[in-house]
Amino acid sequence: MNSILPQTLERLIEELSRLPTIGRKTAQRLAFHIIRHSPPMAENLASAMTEAGARIRPCQQCFFLAEDELCSICKDQRRRPDIVCVVEDPFDVVAFEKAGAYDGLYHVLQGRISPLHGVMPEDLTISSLLERVAKAQPSIEEVILATSPTVDGDATALYLAEQLRGFRCRVTRIGVGVAIGSSLELADELTLRHALERRQDVE
Amino acid sequence: MNSILPQTLERLIEELSRLPTIGRKTAQRLAFHIIRHSPPMAENLASAMTEAGARIRPCQQCFFLAEDELCSICKDQRRRPDIVCVVEDPFDVVAFEKAGAYDGLYHVLQGRISPLHGVMPEDLTISSLLERVAKAQPSIEEVILATSPTVDGDATALYLAEQLRGFRCRVTRIGVGVAIGSSLELADELTLRHALERRQDVE
Repeated sequence: MNSILPQTLERLIEELSRLPTIGRKTAQRLAFHIIRHSPPMAENLASAMTEAGARIRPCQQCFFLAEDELCSICKDQRRRPDIVCVVEDPFDVVAFEKAGAYDGLYHVLQGRISPLHGVMPEDLTISSLLERVAKAQPSIEEVILATSPTVDGDATALYLAEQLRGFRCRVTRIGVGVAIGSSLELADELTLRHALERRQDVE
Repeated sequence: MNSILPQTLERLIEELSRLPTIGRKTAQRLAFHIIRHSPPMAENLASAMTEAGARIRPCQQCFFLAEDELCSICKDQRRRPDIVCVVEDPFDVVAFEKAGAYDGLYHVLQGRISPLHGVMPEDLTISSLLERVAKAQPSIEEVILATSPTVDGDATALYLAEQLRGFRCRVTRIGVGVAIGSSLELADELTLRHALERRQDVE
């Protein structure tokens, strides 16, 4: 059945199927759409990919996405330089920025420690984080560990907390609990257990 | 919030969001994935798009997707040349081929008549179909109208039946079985096979 499509189209569908959440059928739909509006759409997408692929690199300070040496957040003079939020990947930075509740800096680990998946501390940007905190001492007053509330994320947070023990800065972990606006009914059991354990007095 | 991402990445996300079924969040996820595996992934995708965009064109006979003058189906000597299945778009050809129940040729209308959406008969490949049938007379013995079972698809089929009335060939409409209001592309293989088997003459 594959052979009825032109080769170049098959190749495009194959490349698109490599993307996360894109199955064969969606890839086909996308490819048809792209070439239907082609050449402008194919050209625009291709040039956007080539350019982004060539120009985007990790920020030299926090490893978020940047085109220059520093990302837009590290360059921003209005951000508090005394607090660093450690996250697993750039998605998390975008999520926090969307929430709009944080005005400090970030540190992107580029993953989380997961021996099962072969990810060890040295595969992440942990040494850069420690160097960064050491160099900035004592101007970094707090490091927020915002790795995911999963087994690996928790282990990563624990490991980092251990490594940061020598520095004179507060180390905190983001609160885990029931998501605001969600229904209790939909929360998983582990989250509910955590939410119960970490209950606080109502003033 | 947008401004925290590098410009080239923003552009890539924007281009990706133009694709069907891809919202802002998915586009972002795809873009992150693409540049994370970059440059190879970005380059491969970009070159696949450029190539497909430049080389794919409609088959000169049936308007299915082709790289040469004729598509792989029109070129295939084993296909029956005496029966033509008229579909709305290339997706439908792929769906029928996957069902594996048809060995004739196709004609891709490139849409369906829809005055509400400004699509008139002259915007489709209808005149080419009529010319094709006229030229091939009497070797085309049957034209199957496999436009979608929607109001517009039915209207298109009726219009085509009217136009084809002058030719000495059987004109049939795919059988009931394809779910009303749905798209052919989403139909399962069994439904498509049944629909073909139960096709009826258009009076």
